[in-house]
Amino acid sequence: MANSIQPLGQRVLVKRIQAEERTAGGIVLPDSAQEKPQEASVVALGTGGKDDNGNPIEFAVKVGDTVLISKYGGTEVKVGGEDMLILSENDILGIVG
Amino acid sequence: MANSIQPLGQRVLVKRIQAEERTAGGIVLPDSAQEKPQEASVVALGTGGKDDNGNPIEFAVKVGDTVLISKYGGTEVKVGGEDMLILSENDILGIVG
Amino acid sequence: MANSIQPLGQRVLVKRIQAEERTAGGIVLPDSAQEKPQEASVVALGTGGKDDNGNPIEFAVKVGDTVLISKYGGTEVKVGGEDMLILSENDILGIVG
Amino acid sequence: MANSIQPLGQRVLVKRIQAEERTAGGIVLPDSAQEKPQEASVVALGTGGKDDNGNPIEFAVKVGDTVLISKYGGTEVKVGGEDMLILSENDILGIVG
Amino acid sequence: MANSIQPLGQRVLVKRIQAEERTAGGIVLPDSAQEKPQEASVVALGTGGKDDNGNPIEFAVKVGDTVLISKYGGTEVKVGGEDMLILSENDILGIVG
Amino acid sequence: MANSIQPLGQRVLVKRIQAEERTAGGIVLPDSAQEKPQEASVVALGTGGKDDNGNPIEFAVKVGDTVLISKYGGTEVKVGGEDMLILSENDILGIVG
Amino acid sequence: MANSIQPLGQRVLVKRIQAEERTAGGIVLPDSAQEKPQEASVVALGTGGKDDNGNPIEFAVKVGDTVLISKYGGTEVKVGGEDMLILSENDILGIVG
Repeated sequence: MANSIQPLGQRVLVKRIQAEERTAGGIVLPDSAQEKPQEASVVALGTGGKDDNGNPIEFAVKVGDTVLISKYGGTEVKVGGEDMLILSENDILGIVG
Repeated sequence: MANSIQPLGQRVLVKRIQAEERTAGGIVLPDSAQEKPQEASVVALGTGGKDDNGNPIEFAVKVGDTVLISKYGGTEVKVGGEDMLILSENDILGIVG
Repeated sequence: MANSIQPLGQRVLVKRIQAEERTAGGIVLPDSAQEKPQEASVVALGTGGKDDNGNPIEFAVKVGDTVLISKYGGTEVKVGGEDMLILSENDILGIVG
Repeated sequence: MANSIQPLGQRVLVKRIQAEERTAGGIVLPDSAQEKPQEASVVALGTGGKDDNGNPIEFAVKVGDTVLISKYGGTEVKVGGEDMLILSENDILGIVG
Repeated sequence: MANSIQPLGQRVLVKRIQAEERTAGGIVLPDSAQEKPQEASVVALGTGGKDDNGNPIEFAVKVGDTVLISKYGGTEVKVGGEDMLILSENDILGIVG
Repeated sequence: MANSIQPLGQRVLVKRIQAEERTAGGIVLPDSAQEKPQEASVVALGTGGKDDNGNPIEFAVKVGDTVLISKYGGTEVKVGGEDMLILSENDILGIVG
Repeated sequence: MANSIQPLGQRVLVKRIQAEERTAGGIVLPDSAQEKPQEASVVALGTGGKDDNGNPIEFAVKVGDTVLISKYGGTEVKVGGEDMLILSENDILGIVG
């Protein structure tokens, strides 16, 4: 029941963006009929890593970015009562513009 | 339902080029009878990566190139309502001339 | 039956934080009905490791931190009669704030 | 339906050399009775790669070389209506003299 | 039937510490009812290894230390009639204090 | 149907040395009753490789050496009508004196 | 049917030391009832290897040493009519004193 989390290393904390999905006839589909969403919002960046020469590796994403994430990467965590995901920045495919 | 995507690292966003395929007798084959196409057009380059010495790695492809891609590489994404593919530049076999 | 343990290398000694879990009706659930907790308290840091240039790698956590750990990482050990866990710092996902 | 292909990185474009195979009695064997040929002609070299120090890696083969290739390496591509193969230079065993 | 063994490289020779285990009623359990002990005493250090720059890697344990070892690591050897274990220092989790 | 082959990189071309094997009673055993021979004669060295600093790696074998090879390594090739083997120098166990 | 073998690289040629094993009643056990011995005598050192900086790696064992070897490592070879074993020095656990 954490209130906030500081991810370690090159990890990032994200929150999945719930897809509003209706059928053509306007019926809201129950959760199990939806494919898990791939878009997420970046909530917190990790403490960072270092390259082979000891120089810090910068993150390519920043807090607030909407990102595309691999469907099966990351670890589910509960932060402030919300379901979130800690995942490696390598599991982020791109930034949604 | 992204409108644009900035791929991260050495990834590239591509759009498959639909093969127009007709049988000898001129009948258009339905989708499932076609082998998945291997040609794609480069839509966006990633933010780039760095080699072991911290020097940026340049992309060998550029936006607009027609490329040959491995049949099973990459992740399907929907951008502006179109099916696209985010894949590592390593999964691009060559540039079609 | 160790009284204290100095972890080796980049390992960390942690103690799981027991979740107090009650059903809506206030009934305390027996242990087997609970999902294993993911939060733990850092008890001791390892002797540390060195990067490729021989420089010491610093720990990103410190004794007393509440951390989130992977559910299946680490090795169970008994220290001073208590169940603890020795795990690699890489298996710590983040610091709970 | 590419007319030419520029392979990326340390890849090479080759064209298999069709073995003319007749039985002792002079009968031409249909394709399925032949073992896939291992000899190929180098059609195009890749854009090249770089070693760990950033120096370009030279190709050991050149266009026009007849090479021996691993039977199961590479990816089949169609260039100018002909079946060709894009493969890593590492999958070339040797140059036929 | 070795009388002594000099481990090679980053290996360490250890002797498991036999747990004295009695049930609540004071009955000594036969061997097969006990979980294999994880504590061991360091008997000999290896000849040592070298890091990528050719500098010797120092051992974090010393002869006489009581250590915690992974349950399934190492190779059983008989030294001077006693059952011992040669294992990599990486398989030592920590030093018991 | 190559007449000669220049192996690439750290590969070596060898020709297996046929074991003359007779049973105690002097009967020559057919091929399938023999274990595949492990001795081979070095026919040609590869173009060589480079270490991480770009310095050429020298071969430890030379043409004409009789070597011991792993039973299952290498690729069978036909050179000048003879069955030969292209294999990595790493698959050569030793030089027979 | 080699008379001598010069192992390549970091390999070592060893000869297993036959264990004389009798049952309590003095009966010599046939071979199949014995566990394969782990002690061996070093017969020849390899040509040596080089570390990442091109400096030669020294062997930690010398000819004549009695060593402990992993039960399943190495390749069986016949030298001068005797069964021997070529194995990587890494598969030697320690030197018996």
